Formats: sequence, C-alpha cells, structure tokens
Amino acid sequence: MTEPSASARQRPIPEHCTSQTLERIGVSHTDMMGIVHHSHYVVFFERGRLEYMRRRGLSYKEFVGRGLHMPVIELNVRYRKPALFDDELHVETRLGGLTRVTVRFEYAVRRPGAEGSELLLDASVQLACVNDAQRPRGLPADVVQQLLAPERAHS
Amino acid sequence: MTEPSASARQRPIPEHCTSQTLERIGVSHTDMMGIVHHSHYVVFFERGRLEYMRRRGLSYKEFVGRGLHMPVIELNVRYRKPALFDDELHVETRLGGLTRVTVRFEYAVRRPGAEGSELLLDASVQLACVNDAQRPRGLPADVVQQLLAPERAHS
Amino acid sequence: MTEPSASARQRPIPEHCTSQTLERIGVSHTDMMGIVHHSHYVVFFERGRLEYMRRRGLSYKEFVGRGLHMPVIELNVRYRKPALFDDELHVETRLGGLTRVTVRFEYAVRRPGAEGSELLLDASVQLACVNDAQRPRGLPADVVQQLLAPERAHS
Amino acid sequence: MTEPSASARQRPIPEHCTSQTLERIGVSHTDMMGIVHHSHYVVFFERGRLEYMRRRGLSYKEFVGRGLHMPVIELNVRYRKPALFDDELHVETRLGGLTRVTVRFEYAVRRPGAEGSELLLDASVQLACVNDAQRPRGLPADVVQQLLAPERAHS
Repeated sequence: MTEPSASARQRPIPEHCTSQTLERIGVSHTDMMGIVHHSHYVVFFERGRLEYMRRRGLSYKEFVGRGLHMPVIELNVRYRKPALFDDELHVETRLGGLTRVTVRFEYAVRRPGAEGSELLLDASVQLACVNDAQRPRGLPADVVQQLLAPERAHS
Repeated sequence: MTEPSASARQRPIPEHCTSQTLERIGVSHTDMMGIVHHSHYVVFFERGRLEYMRRRGLSYKEFVGRGLHMPVIELNVRYRKPALFDDELHVETRLGGLTRVTVRFEYAVRRPGAEGSELLLDASVQLACVNDAQRPRGLPADVVQQLLAPERAHS
Repeated sequence: MTEPSASARQRPIPEHCTSQTLERIGVSHTDMMGIVHHSHYVVFFERGRLEYMRRRGLSYKEFVGRGLHMPVIELNVRYRKPALFDDELHVETRLGGLTRVTVRFEYAVRRPGAEGSELLLDASVQLACVNDAQRPRGLPADVVQQLLAPERAHS
Repeated sequence: MTEPSASARQRPIPEHCTSQTLERIGVSHTDMMGIVHHSHYVVFFERGRLEYMRRRGLSYKEFVGRGLHMPVIELNVRYRKPALFDDELHVETRLGGLTRVTVRFEYAVRRPGAEGSELLLDASVQLACVNDAQRPRGLPADVVQQLLAPERAHS
C-alpha cells in the first residue's frame, strides 16, 4: 500500500491544543425570543480560532500577507441551551484535526455558574488553506508547528 | 411493538415542499478576502424558511403569538465555492423532515450564470418547537399541514 | 473670486433622484426588546444606495473595478418609532448632495399601514470617492451623470 | 421664566465619566475594501456603554428587569480613518449629557501605535429611557447617580 489511509495522514493532536476566549452578550446579540440569535456564535468561533493562533505566535495577518487564506469549508453546530443577555460565555477552541490542506477546530461554549458550568453548545469548523486565487495549498510547515504548539504566556 | 420507530414517525415530504428566495450580495456581506463571509448565509437560511412558511399561509408572527417558537438546534453547512460582491444568489429551502417536535430544512445556494447555475453550498437546519419557557411542544396540527402544503401564489 | 463657494459647487438635485427598496424584518433583526436593533438599518441604507445606483445603470462592482471606492465618512440617524418582526419596511433613498468628491444620500424608512405609512426614522449618509490607496479622487463625470439620472425600468 | 432652558436642565458631567473598551478586529468585521465595514462600530458603541454602566455598578440587565429600556434615538458618526484586520482599537465612551429622560454618550475610537494613537472616528449616541410599552419615563435617581459616578475597580 503506497497510499496512506486518511487516518494515517491525520496527525495526532496534543492535549495542550486548546484556548479559551470570553464573550460578553450584548443587546445586539439577542433576538425577540430574549436569547442569543444562533448566527452570532459563528463569529465567536472565528474570534476563538484567531486568538488560538495569536497565542501560539501565528499571526493570521502575516499568513494573509504570504498570499494564503483559510476559508471555512464546513460548519456544524449543535445548540443545546440558550444564552441570555449579559451572560459571559466561555468559548473553548480545540484543534481537532490537521491534514496537509485542512484544519479542523472544535468548540464548546459554556456558561459558568454557581453550580458549575453549563454546556450551551458544541461545534466544529473545518478550514482549508488556499492561495489568493482560492486554490488549495499545503499548510506551510511553520504554520503546522505553531498550530500544534502550546499557548505562550499572554496578557 | 407499540412504539413506532424513528423512521416510521418521520413523515414523507412531498416534492412541492420547496421555495426559493433571492439574496443580492452587498459590501457588508463581503470580507477582506473579497468573498461573502461564511456567517451571513445563516441569516439567508432564516429568511428562506420564514418565506417558505409565509408562502404557505403560515405566519411565524402568529405562531409566536400563540406562545410558540422554533429555535435552531442544529446547523450544518458545506461551503463549496465562494460568492462575490453583487452576486444574486438563489437560496432553495426544502422541507427535509418533520417529527412531532422538530422541523428540518435543507438548503442549496446557487449562483445562476450563462453556463447554468453553480452550487455554492448546501446546508441543513434543524428547529425544535418550544413554548415561551423553552420547553419542547408538539407542532400544532395546522402548522404541520401548512408546512406540508405547496406554495400559494405570491407576488 | 476664482474659487467658487461650497454651496456653488453643490449641484442642484432633480426630484427624480429617489429609489425605494423593501426590507422584510426577520428574527435576526430583532433584539430582546422585541424591536429591530438599531444597527441593522445601517445595512438597509447600504442596500438602498447600491440599488439606487443599479437602477441608473451604475454598477458599483464596475466602479470598484476602476480602482475606486465610496467609503462612508459620515452617518446620522434619527430613530423615531421602532420596527417589529415581520414588518415590511419601505426604505426611500434620495440623492441629497454631490460635490466633486462626496455623495450624500438621505433616507426615510416607513412602515405602510391601513391608515397610511408611518415614518420610523430618517437618516443621511455621506460617502467620499477614494482610490485603492484610500486617497480622495474626483467622481468620474459618467458616474455623476448616472447618479443624477432617473431610474431606468427595473424588474 | 418658570420654564428652565434646555441648557439649565442639562447636568454638568464630571471628568471621570469615561471608560475604555478594546475591540480586536476579526475577519468578519472587514469588507472587500480590506477595511472595517462602517456598520460594526455601532455594535462597538453598544458594548462601550454597557461596560461603562457595568463598571459603575449599573446592571442593564437589572434595569430591564425593572421594566425599563434605553433604545437609541439618535446616532451620529464621523469616520476619519479606516481600521484594518487585527487592529486592536481603543473605544472611549464618555457620558456626554443627561436630561430627565435621555442619556447621551460620546465616543472616540483610536488605534494605538508607535508614534502615538490615531483617531479613527468620533461619534455620539442619544438614548431615551422608556418603559415596556415604549413610553418615555424619567431616569430613576439611582441610575442617574450611577451614570455620574467614577469607575469602580474592575478586573
């Protein structure tokens, strides 16, 4: 067998490949049901992965400066409980998978409380590395290394 | 067996259970990559299913007036090709499934062109019928009937 | 005096310089107060002026293709009455002023009803013509002509 | 003269009535021009004033729990320079005026840099105190006191 299987190509992901961001819910996030409109979480996920990268020394701005982009190619969300105005949500972003061209992030959004935190939703987002002409490109080796690194200290 | 299986409980969906809406891409939809930011489609899907309902005589406003809501409980999107500024997209909303409490819509977003239309993405959204206290409620019989009906004439 | 005054440089605006677009309010537009969140109108205004241009044969896409942009430099809104879910709003976009470099649009958003339409808000947006380097550029003569033209027939 | 003038009714605003929030620019904030779309600042302003209140012990959630709201009745923005992807913006929210029923916030958005910070835009937002039926109501005395207070320590 010269062609490695999909699972063989998938790299093992270290446990430290996780970062957490906070999202305070404003009026603009709510809808007439009094809960956070489901569309806003998609933006929370983006912020989560940009911060995941930044805390590992990977500047998405520099990445774009190299003529590369990571558009979203797949999005899956399971909404379990609604978030409310003024909630401060914990968004956990975990690296979930890496292939030569794609990166997968997994998300858990939780609301901390007196009796422990509640899981409000979980999600996954698949991104593909493309060039300026939207053609697939292999992830550069230094980017792969940064994605697999632990968080550096951050303020 | 007195308990019917999940598939037995799922109703067959007539072929006429589809509606189409148009979305013209503005500057606010685009991002620095020059393509439509992936978050905006989620709002196009909402518009698609509200219009699907309206064209069948089902007013979501009246539905809410009865103390019922349909929050999104699951969202799955596969992005295949990017949309661009000024594109006029065709959003097809199909009823994909109905259980006692949930409704599933399936989506295809296409860009019409000289050589036929291109499929840009497909998606599914699962909604649950809940009351004002966010507790699951059976979909009212008249609502089920309207969801399964063909489009009435619309302007 | 060789330098004309600002008011002299301001062109008179014909009465036909007005276009109307419709905005159907969805759940995503509403907030926990049950009304349309004030931020969404800013996007309705953008759609209004893009459609104003399109109905006069002025493609903003082609404009951008010429290396020109019209960023917003000033925004003023007076919110008078709230809009609600499912409202179909009439957005009137009027050309309000033209200088060598700037374009001003004025807006009135109304909700039609049995006893006539209600004015919900009025607004103005000032745009400047700039090049790709964000430097001010004079509006091309053909663009000025199109901005001052009446609507062509549109579907 | 028994009717006090508008300026007499306006309270003097202490210098300490200012708070600063940070906004990191993500891809979702940008548009095809490569700059932050003008609509997003309106949401930054909302976050600024909610945080202004929170840091003075004024919970907008409790305010809403008392049957009161503060919808935006006027918005004025002057955009001076564009913000870019990955910028970390400083949003300064100052209490600009208080009447019996209205609150005015003034904003300056700056981008810090090696040669000092650049002013990107300034703005003002006028809000009115209303009840659940959208009728004007006098601002409660304790709320006025909190709006005029200095920031408490915050994490």
